[in-house]
Amino acid sequence: MNIQGFLFSTVEAAIKKPGRRDLALIYSEVPATAAAVFTTSTVKAAPVLVSCEHIACGTAQALIVNSGNANACTGEPGMIVAKETAHLVAHRLGIDDSAVQVCSTGVIGVPLPLERISSAIPQLVEGLSSGTLDDVAQAIMTTDTFPKMEAVCGTAGGKTYSVAGIAKGAGMIMPNMATMLSFIITDAAVDSDFLQKLFRNAVDCSFNAITVDGDMSTNDTCLIMANGMAQNPLIREGSIEGETFAALVCDVLLSLAKLIVKDGEGATKFVEIRVSGAKDNSDAKRAAMAIANSSLVKTAFFGQDANWGRIFAAVGYSGAEVDQSRLSLRFDDVCMARDGIFAGGDAEALGTEILKQKEFTVSVDLGIGSGTATVYTSDLTHEYVSINADYRS
Amino acid sequence: MNIQGFLFSTVEAAIKKPGRRDLALIYSEVPATAAAVFTTSTVKAAPVLVSCEHIACGTAQALIVNSGNANACTGEPGMIVAKETAHLVAHRLGIDDSAVQVCSTGVIGVPLPLERISSAIPQLVEGLSSGTLDDVAQAIMTTDTFPKMEAVCGTAGGKTYSVAGIAKGAGMIMPNMATMLSFIITDAAVDSDFLQKLFRNAVDCSFNAITVDGDMSTNDTCLIMANGMAQNPLIREGSIEGETFAALVCDVLLSLAKLIVKDGEGATKFVEIRVSGAKDNSDAKRAAMAIANSSLVKTAFFGQDANWGRIFAAVGYSGAEVDQSRLSLRFDDVCMARDGIFAGGDAEALGTEILKQKEFTVSVDLGIGSGTATVYTSDLTHEYVSINADYRS
Repeated sequence: MNIQGFLFSTVEAAIKKPGRRDLALIYSEVPATAAAVFTTSTVKAAPVLVSCEHIACGTAQALIVNSGNANACTGEPGMIVAKETAHLVAHRLGIDDSAVQVCSTGVIGVPLPLERISSAIPQLVEGLSSGTLDDVAQAIMTTDTFPKMEAVCGTAGGKTYSVAGIAKGAGMIMPNMATMLSFIITDAAVDSDFLQKLFRNAVDCSFNAITVDGDMSTNDTCLIMANGMAQNPLIREGSIEGETFAALVCDVLLSLAKLIVKDGEGATKFVEIRVSGAKDNSDAKRAAMAIANSSLVKTAFFGQDANWGRIFAAVGYSGAEVDQSRLSLRFDDVCMARDGIFAGGDAEALGTEILKQKEFTVSVDLGIGSGTATVYTSDLTHEYVSINADYRS
Repeated sequence: MNIQGFLFSTVEAAIKKPGRRDLALIYSEVPATAAAVFTTSTVKAAPVLVSCEHIACGTAQALIVNSGNANACTGEPGMIVAKETAHLVAHRLGIDDSAVQVCSTGVIGVPLPLERISSAIPQLVEGLSSGTLDDVAQAIMTTDTFPKMEAVCGTAGGKTYSVAGIAKGAGMIMPNMATMLSFIITDAAVDSDFLQKLFRNAVDCSFNAITVDGDMSTNDTCLIMANGMAQNPLIREGSIEGETFAALVCDVLLSLAKLIVKDGEGATKFVEIRVSGAKDNSDAKRAAMAIANSSLVKTAFFGQDANWGRIFAAVGYSGAEVDQSRLSLRFDDVCMARDGIFAGGDAEALGTEILKQKEFTVSVDLGIGSGTATVYTSDLTHEYVSINADYRS
């Protein structure tokens, strides 16, 4: 996959521990149209505040990201580190500070040592011709067990372009705290307003289908850069090319989002939760998220226990409008309950077999309207507790 | 502790498994003024629907409760079982069906076998002279590791009365699903309207300080019966006696609520979360509950890891108004962070020592107003996962 005009570099800055590349740079040879979605938490990390200000103009040319330290809850000193990081990168690359996006992920509340970053930047910039996007995907990992990357191609006005993305995040079992970073790059030329709009929509149907709005970490950032090096005619809203491009971006984000769930901390199951028959789509999302976030449902998945009653109970407290006598539930194609009660027959045995699979679908029909939603979740395991009890040690 | 006019009985009905007393009866020799608070879930168990209807008149004389089966998501057959249970008890006792409260706790979605209950009722009623409230506290346990009981005395008009309560529930680590049952009995004579009001307030400052409003199970029920056998002048709102009585009921409920947290499934820590300086009390509660419910905060407690950043992050997504530069945090009397950043010095080492204790307090000051809230929580452990992965086996 060749995404024209983008260069990559990674180095070991030993921010948390030595022994791995923990600082990465993505650089576009020309300024790129850019859009970003940041955490909605009121406690925002310094790099989020800096990046949010920098991207206000709708363009970006470089992105520097470190793992091992979130630079969150670090006060004014943290802001200085984030700004100085952008400045040093900009200076080396000969671009404006505001063209640099800064991202961090890792432990909260520990000062991020500027000197380790500043001393690594020369080597980082020098290495730009030799790195790959895959190297960056590796460098941004924290508790992730594998790097997450996806790429697709499209055409516009006879020109072929590529859309590639990487992501990190493995704490989606409890989506509201694990930092989720995702960077999408494309060599397509895209209208700026359209890029903002389609990117927000794509985030809603992907990363926001594995997390709850407003329940994000201090550092969550999704960013897209479109540098136009494919030399296609500008992709605009309302065109066939626009629809295709938006769909491709959605595909890339949804693939990355699913990879995050599959890499969920300690996860042994990948579960698709589909809710239908809700009063409206918001109600469906509410019910689906209540199921997906319930510790009792998730431990039952881990235990391969077809305890469908816990799923109905989660729907009951979700806030969605419910008539309990109309609820039905399936594990894959096995009906576990209908009209609010157990389906009987072999359902228990068949449902248990479904839950023994590594991946399965839970479908709940509320039976009162036409609202639908799909979200993705994993199970809650001993390993999740181990990972998070010992995270800083 | 003698609560005049109340009798108790327990029997083995082998509802889920043989080998323990799982059916209990509380009976007042005279009709009692009564008040109850039920789950706000839209998926309500059959006994909740029946009890809610029965208590509408503000009186009750008997309460039958089983463990081992929640009789929830059991449809119309479940309603028939709940109603018939009340009817059989009423018939034996020679009282109206509507004077009988029915409660169930246990697995959801499994039909409750009426015949096991109906065949046990004669023995249950016959045993009324020999049982104790402690027996009932034992019989309603599910994953609880100890029975929960509290009793206090008061006086009104020269007469001494008693207030005693029992509770079950051990899943408060994830408060929104584990059935919480609590039954309070008193021989005081209390004005009916006042009893309704003070009981709801008492639930708010106790059980609702360990759970989120609207995040309850299908079966949650708190009930109080006041039979007046202490022959005190009627306790009314606006009197000294009324204030005393309300405070005693609050004390009993708060003690029981704390016992539930201490018996939290798999819990090794009991943590009091105090939030101050919020815009208002609701915001304080929001922030406190976000901390108390965060899987990452709770696993850090389990790991005895003074990871205060996760606490600020939880405050950040709580929905409470926050100025991150004004946040401060203490573990007991050790200041971990002030003005939004790490307090420095020995805080890390001292904080870690605090977290090694079995009980400690986390105090967060939002620094912007005068709103306060206190909630109680426990840690999230391997044992929690084990208990809930294997619950039905």
